[in-house]
Amino acid sequence: MRLPRIFYKKRPRRASRTGPRVVIVGGGFGGLQAAKALGEAPVRVTLVDRRNHHLFQPLLYQVATAVLSPADIAHPIRSVLRDRRNVEVVLGEVEAIDPAAKEVILAEGRLPYDYLILAAGATHAYFGHDEWEPLAPGLKTLEDALAIRRRILLAFEEAEREPDPERRKALMTFVVVGAGPTGVEMAGAIAEIARYSLSRDFRHIDTRDARVILVEASDRALAAFPAGLSRYAIADLKRLGVDVRLGKPVTAIAPGLVTIGDEPIAAETVIWAAGVRASPLGRSLGVALDRAGRVLVNPDLTVPGYPDIFVVGDMAMLNGPDGKPLPGVAQVAMQEGTWAAGNIERAIAGKPLLPFRYRDLGNMATIGRNAAIADIRGLRLTGFIAWLAWALVHIMNLIGFRNRILVALQWLWGYLTFQRGARLITGSPVE
Amino acid sequence: MRLPRIFYKKRPRRASRTGPRVVIVGGGFGGLQAAKALGEAPVRVTLVDRRNHHLFQPLLYQVATAVLSPADIAHPIRSVLRDRRNVEVVLGEVEAIDPAAKEVILAEGRLPYDYLILAAGATHAYFGHDEWEPLAPGLKTLEDALAIRRRILLAFEEAEREPDPERRKALMTFVVVGAGPTGVEMAGAIAEIARYSLSRDFRHIDTRDARVILVEASDRALAAFPAGLSRYAIADLKRLGVDVRLGKPVTAIAPGLVTIGDEPIAAETVIWAAGVRASPLGRSLGVALDRAGRVLVNPDLTVPGYPDIFVVGDMAMLNGPDGKPLPGVAQVAMQEGTWAAGNIERAIAGKPLLPFRYRDLGNMATIGRNAAIADIRGLRLTGFIAWLAWALVHIMNLIGFRNRILVALQWLWGYLTFQRGARLITGSPVE
Repeated sequence: MRLPRIFYKKRPRRASRTGPRVVIVGGGFGGLQAAKALGEAPVRVTLVDRRNHHLFQPLLYQVATAVLSPADIAHPIRSVLRDRRNVEVVLGEVEAIDPAAKEVILAEGRLPYDYLILAAGATHAYFGHDEWEPLAPGLKTLEDALAIRRRILLAFEEAEREPDPERRKALMTFVVVGAGPTGVEMAGAIAEIARYSLSRDFRHIDTRDARVILVEASDRALAAFPAGLSRYAIADLKRLGVDVRLGKPVTAIAPGLVTIGDEPIAAETVIWAAGVRASPLGRSLGVALDRAGRVLVNPDLTVPGYPDIFVVGDMAMLNGPDGKPLPGVAQVAMQEGTWAAGNIERAIAGKPLLPFRYRDLGNMATIGRNAAIADIRGLRLTGFIAWLAWALVHIMNLIGFRNRILVALQWLWGYLTFQRGARLITGSPVE
Repeated sequence: MRLPRIFYKKRPRRASRTGPRVVIVGGGFGGLQAAKALGEAPVRVTLVDRRNHHLFQPLLYQVATAVLSPADIAHPIRSVLRDRRNVEVVLGEVEAIDPAAKEVILAEGRLPYDYLILAAGATHAYFGHDEWEPLAPGLKTLEDALAIRRRILLAFEEAEREPDPERRKALMTFVVVGAGPTGVEMAGAIAEIARYSLSRDFRHIDTRDARVILVEASDRALAAFPAGLSRYAIADLKRLGVDVRLGKPVTAIAPGLVTIGDEPIAAETVIWAAGVRASPLGRSLGVALDRAGRVLVNPDLTVPGYPDIFVVGDMAMLNGPDGKPLPGVAQVAMQEGTWAAGNIERAIAGKPLLPFRYRDLGNMATIGRNAAIADIRGLRLTGFIAWLAWALVHIMNLIGFRNRILVALQWLWGYLTFQRGARLITGSPVE
């Protein structure tokens, strides 16, 4: 079969076999940027990730709330780096770092490096209550998102056939723990599903009776934003019917029961958006970590005592110009990844490393349709404008034309119809 | 927050509480059509399915081969039937039928019926070799499709880091058992992925070296088609590099080794598309079944001895006008579902039931880009025209505007770029 060659370039040569070996651990925002930046440098790059795909985590909550499909926010790492001929991608699980031997230890063997970039990210932390994890899943991977989507949709299905009104109430009560961006976005999205998307589909329950509770131990929601903007966000959440509890810690989680402060609440679905802990790989370096397990890096992003190891993104702890730690967000990770790559090139060229300079491009969160907040270098937006800005920024930052188009279309469709396009309960059939 | 009401109709009244109770088991093509047809009838309908979604199975192989996402070919059963006010949907697993008590037995309890429509479909059968199932998964559910997608993509990932050339060869050998439409479409799709989509992404393997073998015990591929068309399809498969073995039974499947006739072939990935067995629910009726476990129904689709039980789709065995059994395809199931609904209305009205009349709308299969065969009431198409017809028919038959647009777009994108948009390995991380 003869084929049009227009879109079908010939495959690149084998990876360059010369130059220092740079190993990058993690294909998230930080690692991927580093690999791209080193794609033209005189080095041999190996990027290791346990997943075959880069995940656009800022939209993961939309997979969990049935708006998007996993493939819409994920992209194969290999194809992102396809044309960087000196970069190879290895699918594998890194177990530890051996900084003395300068090797990365995988289940399959050891990868020697001349320079190492650690960008393995973070996972959710339960502050010494790991027994809560199965009861209150967090949202970090696509599997997490599908499991949460399954729980939310199954809760309504079970409520529909539940005769006991008390248990039906518990099934229709959703508690989101933690009022950072993820928690706020989850709570808003669940409230919208119950209020609009599902409202006409059931016969025995009125999904609009569903209760969504957002709990935050500190007395500020969205602490990263100016107080005025977070107050606006809270007001929007309340307008959506979300019950917001600030300054109230979750003291206990048991099957079907959450205790907020000293008030027990019957809830079958609890979602954890409260805390994160850096990848345990940091520990294998044997250097100082902060309470969240992040490596206290030098200003040039190297690890104290190891000028050949760089740590970026959620694994790194570095103070910003304001003296406060840089937040665990995509733009910090991306800028650090690029910066670490630049410093490696400087080291190879025998130049001194430069201290990381962070350019804060702004901060955004969405509450629901027409409702968002944005703080873009002092410019503060709310409502429809902020929501539109949020949508555009996120679409532009997705990897791949296909994903941008698909996400934009599905948002448009959802906006017009109030429906959710990915309302699938997958995994094992109903138990 | 005030909301535009344009797209947001008020929810329907509660389900009608009068009229005979019709229970439909299964929300596939047959069950869904029956529920729609009964949506205006003076009956109370309950549709039971273990899944919350209707699945468009003809495109399932495209989820397995990373073209589409699960949500693109699935639709929540509830929202399809949202405006049929006398229909309610129950998510539940039917364990058996009690025809004497006229009850459907679920894990959660019993559903009494006046009329029953059994449309629980079929699953894959291993002809007495159930031990092959874990080694050679079949393709019936979204979970099956994601598991197969995972196996195919992981095989290339493992080959990329495999030093032993023999094992690398086995990892890059894919055996598809059964040359019906599903087998042919799977084999063609895998060959295309290896030949185009992945060809530039790896550094140590050339994915175009991958071997795809299609095995068929009988001496005819696509037996449902005229001989000329199936020969055309085989020629196309060979042009894609597929190694087609007709008249060769698979005699043994062991981990990493498939025996075709008496020739052992080292292959890490085997996909089963050879046989189906009807849902075991048929057995609980205690009536005559054929070898595939299908109920031998009366011409009016009722079960011999049970004028109140109808069986449709892959669970039913009925001969067509040509004296040959009607095939297990969507159009047969849909027409039978509508027909059963009509006969129930006639029974309620005291009219005699009518024997099912099948209108064969034609038969299509696709081999790959620009390559398909179609037999539309004598009109025989091949190549690009058949492929275009295939694409249009399948898009038109998808449920929901959203899914039609998304599938059309992803096909267009894949056609132009040769890429696969859903190249995700999900499930547990690499083992």
